[in-house]
Amino acid sequence: MNILPQKIEDLIESFSLLPGIGPKSAARIVFYLQKAPEELSLALADTLVGAKRGIKTCSQCYNLSDEKECYICQNEERDRSKILVVEDALDLVAIENTGFYQGLYHVLGGIISPINGIGPEEIRIKELLDRITSQTISELIVATNPNMEGEATALYIQNEVKKIDIDLDITRLAQGLAMGADIDYTDDTTIRKALEGRKKL
Amino acid sequence: MNILPQKIEDLIESFSLLPGIGPKSAARIVFYLQKAPEELSLALADTLVGAKRGIKTCSQCYNLSDEKECYICQNEERDRSKILVVEDALDLVAIENTGFYQGLYHVLGGIISPINGIGPEEIRIKELLDRITSQTISELIVATNPNMEGEATALYIQNEVKKIDIDLDITRLAQGLAMGADIDYTDDTTIRKALEGRKKL
Repeated sequence: MNILPQKIEDLIESFSLLPGIGPKSAARIVFYLQKAPEELSLALADTLVGAKRGIKTCSQCYNLSDEKECYICQNEERDRSKILVVEDALDLVAIENTGFYQGLYHVLGGIISPINGIGPEEIRIKELLDRITSQTISELIVATNPNMEGEATALYIQNEVKKIDIDLDITRLAQGLAMGADIDYTDDTTIRKALEGRKKL
Repeated sequence: MNILPQKIEDLIESFSLLPGIGPKSAARIVFYLQKAPEELSLALADTLVGAKRGIKTCSQCYNLSDEKECYICQNEERDRSKILVVEDALDLVAIENTGFYQGLYHVLGGIISPINGIGPEEIRIKELLDRITSQTISELIVATNPNMEGEATALYIQNEVKKIDIDLDITRLAQGLAMGADIDYTDDTTIRKALEGRKKL
């Protein structure tokens, strides 16, 4: 027998399907919404529906966009000679928020992962190669995550780009100690990468 | 300038207003929803609207309900001589989920907190006293949280009940070590409570 009205149970269930929200947090959110003014729930419902309507991917870089090209690709001040390759738009946002990068992006929409049955054809590598050949690019920054799948994808992209006869720097983000890290808590691979990449003071 | 379409920024903003969800988790949820089939967003929007319509509080115990009385108060098998007092319906759900309690509840809808300007009149203490005088109750279990505000509320309820000339046991939940706790990581008050409440083996 239910403890709560079915509609409330349904809403808790819906929230707990979202990433990072367990049944306890879902219940907490639902009880918060029940106490809050109705407008909050209605606004959330509205934006939920709105965000699924009229949002597509940018025809250039595959970032989320409500126009043909996203705000970054439309921005005339961006450096059009650089493309930074990311796994998904979340990574793009993280890099963009640093305010440190002024070039363009390319969102792969996934990562090569044989275990999950994702090959190079499933992600937007062909589209990336098309951009490189049709536009004048001087640097390709491959910013996939520093893990096995990210490294494999970076290596695959590097090989494919080399097959095209084009003058282009391919770079990877530096690896090493994170800001505020404790060396004695840091894993061996990171310490090795930090040593290999050491810089003269 | 925006990185993402306004509708997406709006949805991230909406999610980050919910308790326990920061801007990073909100973005993660929104990107997840963008990848997922439209039905998931629409279902969530629907349940959000539905949960605000037709949900009221039980006329007896103030648990959430879609009928005059909640499922617990309607259930004839519950022990009607016991009332367990909780701060909010989340606590009710937690206790109910143990399956260990068969009596009725009373949801205060808050806790006495002078700092937050919440006095005894702001929460459902009068309603509780009305229930105690009009019904035949043998035990009142005051299950407010074991912190300063919870203790003060329990004390206040105890005093108010004593003013009514009625034969009634008032109890509090036991305090002591939590299951799986580490004594050397446990705070002094909890250890003191565990010692005071020690039981013969």
